[in-house]
Amino acid sequence: MDDDPTTEILDATYQALCTHGYAEFTVQDIAAESTMSKASIHYHYDSKEDLFVAFLDYLYDRYTAQIEAVTGETPRRKLRSLLELLVTDNGETPETEFRTAMLEVKAQAPYNEEIQERLVEFDAVLFERLEEIIEARVSRGEFTGRIDPSVAAESLTTTITGAHTRRVAVDHSTDKLYEMMTRYIQTNLLTEMTVEGRQ
Amino acid sequence: MDDDPTTEILDATYQALCTHGYAEFTVQDIAAESTMSKASIHYHYDSKEDLFVAFLDYLYDRYTAQIEAVTGETPRRKLRSLLELLVTDNGETPETEFRTAMLEVKAQAPYNEEIQERLVEFDAVLFERLEEIIEARVSRGEFTGRIDPSVAAESLTTTITGAHTRRVAVDHSTDKLYEMMTRYIQTNLLTEMTVEGRQ
Repeated sequence: MDDDPTTEILDATYQALCTHGYAEFTVQDIAAESTMSKASIHYHYDSKEDLFVAFLDYLYDRYTAQIEAVTGETPRRKLRSLLELLVTDNGETPETEFRTAMLEVKAQAPYNEEIQERLVEFDAVLFERLEEIIEARVSRGEFTGRIDPSVAAESLTTTITGAHTRRVAVDHSTDKLYEMMTRYIQTNLLTEMTVEGRQ
Repeated sequence: MDDDPTTEILDATYQALCTHGYAEFTVQDIAAESTMSKASIHYHYDSKEDLFVAFLDYLYDRYTAQIEAVTGETPRRKLRSLLELLVTDNGETPETEFRTAMLEVKAQAPYNEEIQERLVEFDAVLFERLEEIIEARVSRGEFTGRIDPSVAAESLTTTITGAHTRRVAVDHSTDKLYEMMTRYIQTNLLTEMTVEGRQ
């Protein structure tokens, strides 16, 4: 375990959020998930709101590191690994509950400027990473010349967001969504030459 | 105003939902938005939950009628009108607040089977309508032969869902999202022959 007490608090926040959801979780629930008391948590964070904003910043750092670390021999494989990271899930309980809690947080964004600012950062970093990979593909000739990288990145950012929402709201299989997106890329973004394994 | 008291209650539910959000609205708030008392509302619906499920059924009927009524001389124009109906908004307050409340409802779906069943119906009717329009386009030769209507409809359903989420979570302009989707259709779904007004 990390020795930094704030890291312990933020890890416990993740657990409390999965168990209770955003509206319901309390600093007491976080204490219950950690070795710390409610008082020691309040020593680090004045309110649940402050703590939650710090939690989003912590998630953002991990998220950025994960999407930057996506590898692949070609831009195309990189794009596929990125979708795999973001869209598939292994059906484990905490992951499903975390997605649900994050959708709840998104619905709170119009009422909380600090939360909305963070969500805008998550959205922007995904868009930029997608655009960067697609630009590299266009310059390698893997893409049809008709593709504008910023339009394709905008479209994929929206589709990935929709995949997360449908996963929670209508229990839509992420495998089906992942398959749809890889077919979308194969059918719409790749030049005939680079299509491999089309169904 | 409709003489049916349940219609009055459900219209008032829409207003109460926009004003207070899903978690906070009460039967008292609905009474405040109508000419009826809390007791007369309870005469028709046992609980807030029953009332809300009836409200979703009422919305579903209106939604289905709206997406069925979309017209256009060609399937392509029909698809564009459907996107216009579903993705653009006029920036009026109730519409924005209603989208936020509906995102809140989506985050509740995993905890409420009756709500999730209704959301699945909304999702399915959109998918089916899109698939039907795209199939008509393929048979008219407006589409590239590479398109599988069910994959394209799945992709558009996910993208439209994502557009609604981003509208609320990151305050993303619906005009920008609408423009992106029409460009996506122009670039990816249409044969060169049928592309008009490409940018």
